Amino acid sequence: MPKLHWEDFKPGDVAVYGPRLVTREEIVAFAAEFDPQPMHLDEAAARATQLGGLAASGWHVSSLVMRMMADGFILNSASMGGPGVDEMNWLKPLRPGTQIRLRATVMETRPSKSRPEMGLTKFRYEMLDDADEVVATMVATALLGRREKGAS
Amino acid sequence: MPKLHWEDFKPGDVAVYGPRLVTREEIVAFAAEFDPQPMHLDEAAARATQLGGLAASGWHVSSLVMRMMADGFILNSASMGGPGVDEMNWLKPLRPGTQIRLRATVMETRPSKSRPEMGLTKFRYEMLDDADEVVATMVATALLGRREKGAS
Repeated sequence: MPKLHWEDFKPGDVAVYGPRLVTREEIVAFAAEFDPQPMHLDEAAARATQLGGLAASGWHVSSLVMRMMADGFILNSASMGGPGVDEMNWLKPLRPGTQIRLRATVMETRPSKSRPEMGLTKFRYEMLDDADEVVATMVATALLGRREKGAS
Repeated sequence: MPKLHWEDFKPGDVAVYGPRLVTREEIVAFAAEFDPQPMHLDEAAARATQLGGLAASGWHVSSLVMRMMADGFILNSASMGGPGVDEMNWLKPLRPGTQIRLRATVMETRPSKSRPEMGLTKFRYEMLDDADEVVATMVATALLGRREKGAS
């Protein structure tokens, strides 16, 4: 399979990656390391919180988005990293036992002005659950190598 | 120590949390699970990338911000979670062996209009390295319980 470059992504392109099963064990393990709030660690304690039961840390959700992006296309691309995230919204609790998928939509592409070997691709990501409901959204720009160098 | 509520945070307040040592082992372990790109997994492979050497995944950086927020104040607060992140920027590679600190600045506070028991507090977070340089920034709103319910 040829490696994906900046030229291979066009505004409006949509891809869906996954599914991936999210287990109780990984929710608790992530929380213990990075977000040890009771609502992410313990079912009984979580029931008394605004989440109404154990749910993954938002940072776990976002890290799972990253992993699904990586498996979905980044590891097969001329990726040059990413400078950050424009916005990220955690919309619905991610519960143990959920099968998640990731929908990636290309919003915008442009060549880099300063680096003719690179292009920028802005994506909107949506994590979907079993019921096709949106668990989280993220907008972020990927830096991708170009197959053909642009004019400087 | 009394639990922190929405009333305890005022615009302009600054706190610094940490330090915390970031090890090569944890950088590689996080990457293997969530962001298995060579620049986060292997020193030799990383040298050939735009990072110029092994550095933590941005998502690891962000998850460490969360953990330092948690230890710094959230676990001792009437936290009601957070809806997401307004922006996040990864500015400088986070290398193995770095001692990080987290600077949290209160930007804005407002009571919730719909929930008199809750307030919103917008923070700007900066992760600092040994040289006091900014590794990453994040702007996010925390939902915090109020000590005294507001007028509905």
